[in-house]
Amino acid sequence: MPKKIHEPIGHHYIVESSGCDPKVIGSVEKVQQILVRAAEIAGATVWAISFSRFPPSGVSGVVVISESHISTHTWPELGYGALDIYTCGRKVDPEKAVLYAVEAFGATTFHITEITRGIEEGDNVFFHSFVTWEEDIKKENKYKKDLKR
Amino acid sequence: MPKKIHEPIGHHYIVESSGCDPKVIGSVEKVQQILVRAAEIAGATVWAISFSRFPPSGVSGVVVISESHISTHTWPELGYGALDIYTCGRKVDPEKAVLYAVEAFGATTFHITEITRGIEEGDNVFFHSFVTWEEDIKKENKYKKDLKR
Repeated sequence: MPKKIHEPIGHHYIVESSGCDPKVIGSVEKVQQILVRAAEIAGATVWAISFSRFPPSGVSGVVVISESHISTHTWPELGYGALDIYTCGRKVDPEKAVLYAVEAFGATTFHITEITRGIEEGDNVFFHSFVTWEEDIKKENKYKKDLKR
Repeated sequence: MPKKIHEPIGHHYIVESSGCDPKVIGSVEKVQQILVRAAEIAGATVWAISFSRFPPSGVSGVVVISESHISTHTWPELGYGALDIYTCGRKVDPEKAVLYAVEAFGATTFHITEITRGIEEGDNVFFHSFVTWEEDIKKENKYKKDLKR
């Protein structure tokens, strides 16, 4: 009988968000609120959070979730936010978290790579594969209701 | 005068480590010790850590560093460890952290993608680029002296 090959183990999204609202991505409180909400929207369970000021004016934050992690590092002076979301298992939908977070950041466009991680090529040797795309965001402010301003 | 284009803002390494020692990557204490040491070897300052059991037998951990983060999620039953290291600025060397961590995990081979993040294409629009390779590791055990067994 052929050896069982495991399903890919996780999905990791690497995102460069441009045109973000400096008032949002420069606020430790707002960025924390957005990332925790993003985890909830993805269906993940939040285990721990760590957010702080990232000199000179940005925010650095990590949300540890049961299914892995979400992190961001922001540069309000450039309108730029780096975001990554890594999840394992089938019960979470990390793409929902990405879309929520970039819109809540007020981004006008984002460049994204989805990495499928832990693909077994046989004999417990693992690799990853990726696909990259860009998206522009319509300014509908539909997620702003989630933010306590 | 042409507008100044920023240097790339960060480097993010995405690593699939295969053939790892289950006794190492199945121990919360050892994995935590390895990732904190990896951060130090890279020249980063550790701000916060969060490590826990990842069901059924793995370890999930994040080290928040001043220059961004290091995270891992392990599957001892597969000898597999997923690792990512994201750093900003010039004063840290994330590749040193990667090499230390995969060797300390006891990996026999690893598949790695280095993503250069926050590359400005003009007008504060950012993207990333990447390069992928694989490496086999010689079993010299040279990093084991760093582990309290």
